[in-house]
This record gives sequence, C-alpha cells and structure tokens, in this order.
Amino acid sequence: MQFISRATPLYEFLRLSNGTNHEKRVLDCGAGGAQPPLYLFYQHGYQTYGIDISEDAIKASENFCQKNNLNIDLNIKKGDMRTIEYEDEFFSFVYSYNSINHLSKSDIIKTMREIERVLTPDGLCYVNFGSEDSEIGDRGEKIGEGEYLLPIGNNQTALHTFHTDNEADSYFRNFKLLRKEKSILYRYEKGELQFLICKIHYIGKKM
Amino acid sequence: MQFISRATPLYEFLRLSNGTNHEKRVLDCGAGGAQPPLYLFYQHGYQTYGIDISEDAIKASENFCQKNNLNIDLNIKKGDMRTIEYEDEFFSFVYSYNSINHLSKSDIIKTMREIERVLTPDGLCYVNFGSEDSEIGDRGEKIGEGEYLLPIGNNQTALHTFHTDNEADSYFRNFKLLRKEKSILYRYEKGELQFLICKIHYIGKKM
Repeated sequence: MQFISRATPLYEFLRLSNGTNHEKRVLDCGAGGAQPPLYLFYQHGYQTYGIDISEDAIKASENFCQKNNLNIDLNIKKGDMRTIEYEDEFFSFVYSYNSINHLSKSDIIKTMREIERVLTPDGLCYVNFGSEDSEIGDRGEKIGEGEYLLPIGNNQTALHTFHTDNEADSYFRNFKLLRKEKSILYRYEKGELQFLICKIHYIGKKM
Repeated sequence: MQFISRATPLYEFLRLSNGTNHEKRVLDCGAGGAQPPLYLFYQHGYQTYGIDISEDAIKASENFCQKNNLNIDLNIKKGDMRTIEYEDEFFSFVYSYNSINHLSKSDIIKTMREIERVLTPDGLCYVNFGSEDSEIGDRGEKIGEGEYLLPIGNNQTALHTFHTDNEADSYFRNFKLLRKEKSILYRYEKGELQFLICKIHYIGKKM
C-alpha cells in the first residue's frame, strides 16, 4: 500500500533515523489511532513497538491494519508513557506525536525522563508540544500554567498543555538538539481564517 | 530504494494529491538538485515533469539517478518558471519548493499566474515563500521591499525574497486554500542558536 502518514513531521525524524547505523527498533508513545504512524516505520524495516493509554485508540490501529489487509502486527499495547514498561536503553528511536500535549506539565517531565531512560546512548527522539501561540477560543478552564481543560464535544473536556517558545528546551538537557521547529497552521472554514494551531517539534540525540 | 525526501513539506502535498482522482501528472518548478523531490512523486506513480533554470542543478538531479542506479528519467528540462513552456491546463499538480524565493516579487506574480495557467481546474499546487521573520544577519543589500542580495560565498550574492504573513495570500485569489502553514526552523551551531529560517507554505486548489 502506498501510505503517506498524516503525521508529516515524522518524515524528518525517519530521515534522520535512517541516517544512523542504530538497530532499527522504535517506540511510539501514544501509538494508537485510525492511521498509526508506526506503519510508516514498519514499511522502512523497523521493529515497531507502541504504547497507548486508550484501548479505543489501540482498537482503531488494529482496524487500520485489517481494513487495509495488512497481515502485520504493529505491536501496540496498552501502556502509560509516564512509566514505560521497557528496560533501560531498549530503543534506538522513540517518538511521541501529538500526544504529550494531553499530559500535565509535571507528567510531561516524568515522561521525558522515561523516554530518555529507554533510549540507547546516541538514540534519537522526536516529541512535539503544543505552543502557547495556539488560538483555541476561550481556552476552556485554566487549571495550571499553560494547562487547560478544553471542550471536545459531548459535554466532555480534555487536558491540553501549551508551552512557550523555549520552555520545552529544558526537557532536552541530556540531549543534543538536532532540530527544533515551530509550526503555525492556519485553519480555514468556508474560506475564513478560524484559528491557529501551533506546535513546537524537537528532535534530539541522547548524550 | 527507500527514499525519504528532505523536502518534507511535500509529503502533505503528496497526501492531498493522492486523495484526488486527477490524472497523476505533476510539474516541479525548480526541480533540479542533488535530491530531486520529483523522485518521491515518481515512486508514487506520477508522470513527472520538471523545469530548472540551472543546468548544474539539472545535472545534479541526473547524477542522483545514476548514483542510485535508478534507470529512470525524471524528465527535468531547462526552463524558466516565469514562462512555463507547457500548454494551458496540462498538469493536475504543480509545485515549487524552496525556489520561488529567489525571484523578485514582480517575477513571483508572473510565475504564480503561469502555475495557475498550466493547472487543470481543481488542480492542486504547493508553493512556499520566504518569511520576513527569517533572521539572516545584516541581510546583505536591500534592493526592494522584502528583496535582498545575500552573500552565498565566493564573493557571490543571490536574490532572496521575503513575504509578510499574509502577503502571499493575494497570489491565490483564484484558488481555494487547502492549507497554509508557517514554519520557523531554529538553526543551531555548536549548541548555540544561530538564526531562524522561516517559510510560509501554501497548498491551493484552482477554482
């Protein structure tokens, strides 16, 4: 199948990962969903591992494989990225795309330490964060600095965390930054600008 | 060959292009260079056409194919994107990546009209522009509004054109905007932030 992932920032991560001689073993934190990016890495010969806190999201990723007649197992299991159930230095590559922004800042600190722990020395990680420059209407209920409960329909809310431009740099103290990019997506509806979705993307190499 | 293009914003364009039923015929304006993005489209079954003003860049793209033992012809010819030598509505897809920012603003207007002319109705285009938020030292010699001659080594300079956030919107009057994204790349050297490279990326559908 000619698959182009919606998670296009991961192509840069894949390109840099392919440029190393590391063992091709990758972990996705927040791996579930209807179009699992792990399939991209699978296509490029990686041993794929994924964890997701949501059983629905895991089911959706299994449906993706079934629907596309892919007789493969992306190896996505229920798990919590704040306490990753793999041993130290087990992965050459770890990423988390559009997921960590649903954790509180104290949980993000825990998660970043876990990502660092399970990475081999010289291993690469990609993580993106929500940016404070995002325009999200009234932002719902503020519960902490850069932490908001935002409506997601059906009278439910979900935690969304936002970072200032350099705030997330501190998570990468033990990494060499290979790339840092801020992206500002203009969202239009019926030709009118509605709001901006801003993210800050990091690729680091564990020192 | 497992090829990941450095021109990662084009994956979004390829994804949207794959989602149409248009004839898979694509033109790259500024197609030459050591890693021609047209190869990505070739791999996805597109008839590829490219033009480039630079014979060296065309030669570099031919070297890419030879070096990788690709017995293919990406069909990149010498040509000027200000006067595209193809008939009206010949292409379903046209893109120009990191190229149009080397034209003056009056030439960019000409080029955008040409891109529109050679596109089929409902055809898609991707173009990115330099952003005024780029940090480029003293910016060399200013020769017009947002137009600078910047040093490129060997005592040579090259024209670089920069746009404000919404300035390029006017080129897309006859398009429906499918996507607009600004990217801010932080460039580090020896661990120190050196400068920002900012681009504004558009994907439009010809109306």
